[in-house]
Amino acid sequence: MKIVIAPDSFKGSASAHELCAAIARGIRSVMPNAELVEVPLADGGEGIMDNLVHATGGSRIEASVSDPLGRTITAHYGVLGDGSTAVIEMAQASGLPLLQPEERQPLLTSTRGTGELIKHALDLGYRKFIIGLGGSATNDGGAGMLQAIGLQLLNAEGQPLAEGGGALTQLAVLDAAALDPRLAASQFTIACDVTNTLCGLVGASAVFGPQKGATPEMVAQLDSGLLRFAEQIQALRGIDVLSIPGGGAAGGMGAGLLGFMKASIRPGIDVVMEASGFAEAVKDADFIITGEGKLDEQTLSGKVAAGVCRAALPLDIPVIILCGTKSLSGEALRQLGKVSAFSIVAGPCSLEEAMAQTLSLAEACAAQLFGLIENSF
Amino acid sequence: MKIVIAPDSFKGSASAHELCAAIARGIRSVMPNAELVEVPLADGGEGIMDNLVHATGGSRIEASVSDPLGRTITAHYGVLGDGSTAVIEMAQASGLPLLQPEERQPLLTSTRGTGELIKHALDLGYRKFIIGLGGSATNDGGAGMLQAIGLQLLNAEGQPLAEGGGALTQLAVLDAAALDPRLAASQFTIACDVTNTLCGLVGASAVFGPQKGATPEMVAQLDSGLLRFAEQIQALRGIDVLSIPGGGAAGGMGAGLLGFMKASIRPGIDVVMEASGFAEAVKDADFIITGEGKLDEQTLSGKVAAGVCRAALPLDIPVIILCGTKSLSGEALRQLGKVSAFSIVAGPCSLEEAMAQTLSLAEACAAQLFGLIENSF
Repeated sequence: MKIVIAPDSFKGSASAHELCAAIARGIRSVMPNAELVEVPLADGGEGIMDNLVHATGGSRIEASVSDPLGRTITAHYGVLGDGSTAVIEMAQASGLPLLQPEERQPLLTSTRGTGELIKHALDLGYRKFIIGLGGSATNDGGAGMLQAIGLQLLNAEGQPLAEGGGALTQLAVLDAAALDPRLAASQFTIACDVTNTLCGLVGASAVFGPQKGATPEMVAQLDSGLLRFAEQIQALRGIDVLSIPGGGAAGGMGAGLLGFMKASIRPGIDVVMEASGFAEAVKDADFIITGEGKLDEQTLSGKVAAGVCRAALPLDIPVIILCGTKSLSGEALRQLGKVSAFSIVAGPCSLEEAMAQTLSLAEACAAQLFGLIENSF
Repeated sequence: MKIVIAPDSFKGSASAHELCAAIARGIRSVMPNAELVEVPLADGGEGIMDNLVHATGGSRIEASVSDPLGRTITAHYGVLGDGSTAVIEMAQASGLPLLQPEERQPLLTSTRGTGELIKHALDLGYRKFIIGLGGSATNDGGAGMLQAIGLQLLNAEGQPLAEGGGALTQLAVLDAAALDPRLAASQFTIACDVTNTLCGLVGASAVFGPQKGATPEMVAQLDSGLLRFAEQIQALRGIDVLSIPGGGAAGGMGAGLLGFMKASIRPGIDVVMEASGFAEAVKDADFIITGEGKLDEQTLSGKVAAGVCRAALPLDIPVIILCGTKSLSGEALRQLGKVSAFSIVAGPCSLEEAMAQTLSLAEACAAQLFGLIENSF
């Protein structure tokens, strides 16, 4: 019997790697001869860089870059275990956690640092990129990122625009003449879990601006700037970034990437699963066991368990979901395919107690479940 | 697929009947065509009468009898669904809960009321009896019970002894001439979960006397009285009730029954399973699902889940145990056979929350488990 073990981490209590090992111990205690393949996963949101580095046995590279307000900081990006894919999480250089609350100034914050990370990786020879969106402090449509790799944004007087989304309303000319030529040989995969478009009521500024410090007036200015940016991109590149789902992700970073790179935008979990070799691992699998700390309605949109179920469905492979807390009905689970889900806890207990024992509980639960399967044949 | 659903009650939150129905709903949601056989069970201790009446669709019969101190009370015994077996729980007439704390006088308390229940059933024509021991307020070796059905206990002056275990030290003559002749045509099955012998350090008086109110001096007197009673039984009946495991159950009630009735003494769970038709139900079963509120080391001695596992083992039928709290290791469970066990809780929660949702949790858990089994084929 071949069993693929592909859990998410249980946030705050156990890493995906640790869970893989614990679940494997549990299964081996009842099926010593089973073929077990461990594929630690992560959703494609926060932490995608470290998760993919960890999952693929890759490494981290350090670079000095600009933070959202232009101050020099040390940031990291990752290289996957394949040695040829750079994974850049924009929050590392342009993320909201890099700012003090009073520094949230979405008119001024820039994605330049993320562009500097891309340039650093291009310099080291990388041409395959995974870009994790999310957690940004910016609303500049990725303009800063593009400036860092050679795009010029000029006003009506031919002067370079100031940094930040606020200045985009003055954009008159986009000049891509100096855009880094290595981009033409590069492939970008954008991991993105939102489908917001660039502008308007469900656009970047209206939906995500306020949490980055935008007042209603700023939202209007930012939205207007992004619209202007999009029109210029359309004029220069012939690409309508206004209508692309996900174009409004991370302050419009999605649109900036899609406008100038050979890029595809995909759900984060799909990107992670592909990068982790999940598809290859599940070939001929008899079971997949996955897991996440909390299994609830949110799971159905972009979390690991849902991604695993979606991948397993066409292959007709039964999926077992282990979780700390199960808040999904049987009916909701049935919608996911041949799926069954179990809390690992052994009885009434506090969250703290459960979290302190996550690994032993997961091991014990896996042993019972595969013991049952073994007994059923 | 044939599945036998045979849980204990979850004490304080759901009856075995309710659990059967909930588990059946869960299974049916994923296996609409499965053949489900519901066999609500109970351990053979406290509540055996009501449990068996309920499980077999029997009825209750009311009778006026003596309580442990000779006061008239209304007590009940049961008739099983077969219409021919009376189930008498001694605690109904001779139980400790019938007394106020200050009335615990083990020198005086008598099992006469239990004998009156037997006589009542004999009068109604019953000749098959299940007697549930346990919970007694008495330490009279069943003397009062036997007096109620005709046995005479006399002192050296030929006078009847006073009631209660304290008077047995004065026992000189046992006279069975007036013993109810219908006993000869009757069969008694004694449900008993302890193996204490009648006298000595692990005997009825030493082990159970103190909880019935016996001081050390009383224990000595009671033990001496039971020894005298046993010697007289040996002399009259040729039966050595001193050495029988369980003879010391319920203040020596085991010895009294074994000395004068055609009786066999068996673990309560075995008696319940036989009376409930469990053995018949599990023929050709593909799975048995059982359950109890708390699955722990105690489970291994005389509880429902252990009884079900023991019965399933020679038949090689996989057993699933649902529980509120699981405190048994995988290793301990493996000793029980093809057994896997799961807590029904859906995550960290308080005992109160879990107990308030026992039925829906059991239903959901059963659905997930049998969904998994269905998916595995």
